[in-house]
Amino acid sequence: MKIVCIGSGNVATHMAKAFEENGADIVQVWSRELVNAQALANEIGAQAISDLKLVDKYADLYLIAVKDDAIAKVAKELKEINGIVVHTSGATDMEVLAGFKNYGVFYPLQTFSKQQPIDFIHVPLCLEANTEENMSALQLMAMKLTPLIYEVETKKREVLHVAGVFANNFVNHLYQLSHQILKKNDLDFELLRPLIMETAVKVQDALPEDVQTGPAVRNDKKTILKHEELLKRTPHLQEIYKNLSNSIKKSK
Amino acid sequence: MKIVCIGSGNVATHMAKAFEENGADIVQVWSRELVNAQALANEIGAQAISDLKLVDKYADLYLIAVKDDAIAKVAKELKEINGIVVHTSGATDMEVLAGFKNYGVFYPLQTFSKQQPIDFIHVPLCLEANTEENMSALQLMAMKLTPLIYEVETKKREVLHVAGVFANNFVNHLYQLSHQILKKNDLDFELLRPLIMETAVKVQDALPEDVQTGPAVRNDKKTILKHEELLKRTPHLQEIYKNLSNSIKKSK
Repeated sequence: MKIVCIGSGNVATHMAKAFEENGADIVQVWSRELVNAQALANEIGAQAISDLKLVDKYADLYLIAVKDDAIAKVAKELKEINGIVVHTSGATDMEVLAGFKNYGVFYPLQTFSKQQPIDFIHVPLCLEANTEENMSALQLMAMKLTPLIYEVETKKREVLHVAGVFANNFVNHLYQLSHQILKKNDLDFELLRPLIMETAVKVQDALPEDVQTGPAVRNDKKTILKHEELLKRTPHLQEIYKNLSNSIKKSK
Repeated sequence: MKIVCIGSGNVATHMAKAFEENGADIVQVWSRELVNAQALANEIGAQAISDLKLVDKYADLYLIAVKDDAIAKVAKELKEINGIVVHTSGATDMEVLAGFKNYGVFYPLQTFSKQQPIDFIHVPLCLEANTEENMSALQLMAMKLTPLIYEVETKKREVLHVAGVFANNFVNHLYQLSHQILKKNDLDFELLRPLIMETAVKVQDALPEDVQTGPAVRNDKKTILKHEELLKRTPHLQEIYKNLSNSIKKSK
């Protein structure tokens, strides 16, 4: 299987490496800046390019992993492609690729960071394709990386993306706020790390609504007032405390 | 080491079992309802009691693990105790136990659920004591359970408790909201579980502010507007989306 990787950022890097490790051949890496393409290309033995006119016309898969805003633009510059062209975005309509004969979406529902390697068997891949045949082809490719393969159409993928913002971006922000609270009082973030892990572990085989604990869910007004008092010098934190406590009470 | 366990709820159960497994002797379990005391006592070979007058006077440790509101009341009924009396609450002043000669706090900074066993080596124990001697004694007892031992005075413990509400209760609530979003669109919560795990894993050796991702932190207005539009039929979720996105932008 021959793959052209369009992009050299976080997602591109992790996916290209995962494909390479699992027997696919990344033939080219494109980036607007040749030096960025080169960095990834060197790691996986691919050719680095910065001109989309140089893209190999005979690959099986063209993986567009660039910023959402850039997908349409990059797609427009790709000419005479027969292989399947996919983007990897949660928030972008598949039809942005409708100019190709074979196209689809290859959306990894996971958070990637440059430093941290990730095992793709823990990365759900949400697939969409313009034909059943292309869906089958994408599934075969996805199976090289993970058993967690889902067929998800554009509308549902967008919903999934919003849910991911709650479960990842917002959750991480709450970690950050808890760190702020500790810092102001010379307490180490280290203290909270086991609690953070256990909170995530708990919902791996339970539903969050069945394991909710804390003062809000048991309507412990005394503790809630005490906490609001403790946060009065950081009104921004106090407001979030009130909002989320109320949301918990309403969700019971 | 002889321990009397006052309480038979979640925290009492996990701590009593952990002590028993690590060579301590739980001699009695008290609960207002004898049947509740009996359930835990049977599991760990202790005597069940429902009358505080029957409490063994010669234990080394009296572990009060009852609801915050009940701690003072229970403490008042305990007479002629020489061993160390501790409560396990994050939000309660140590001085509620000032009627005893030897007293302190033994606060496990972790979330417990009845069903799920937990390895105490991942439970930070925050200790406080009325004398240095009692602190040393509590540290020796805590070392039976975990290497994660911290000396934390009442004021800081209360701060820790608030931070824990953000990192655990509120985080779990966000999991629940993401589940709500998926459910409305016939998507399975299963899809988000790997993302939830990775989000927690990521901050085990990084700080949350260094790994924040998503549309809010990169100020991707187009995606934010799209998400708000998607949530317009659930104004409650839309409001939380706006609040937390703004908080992320402000925290940059």
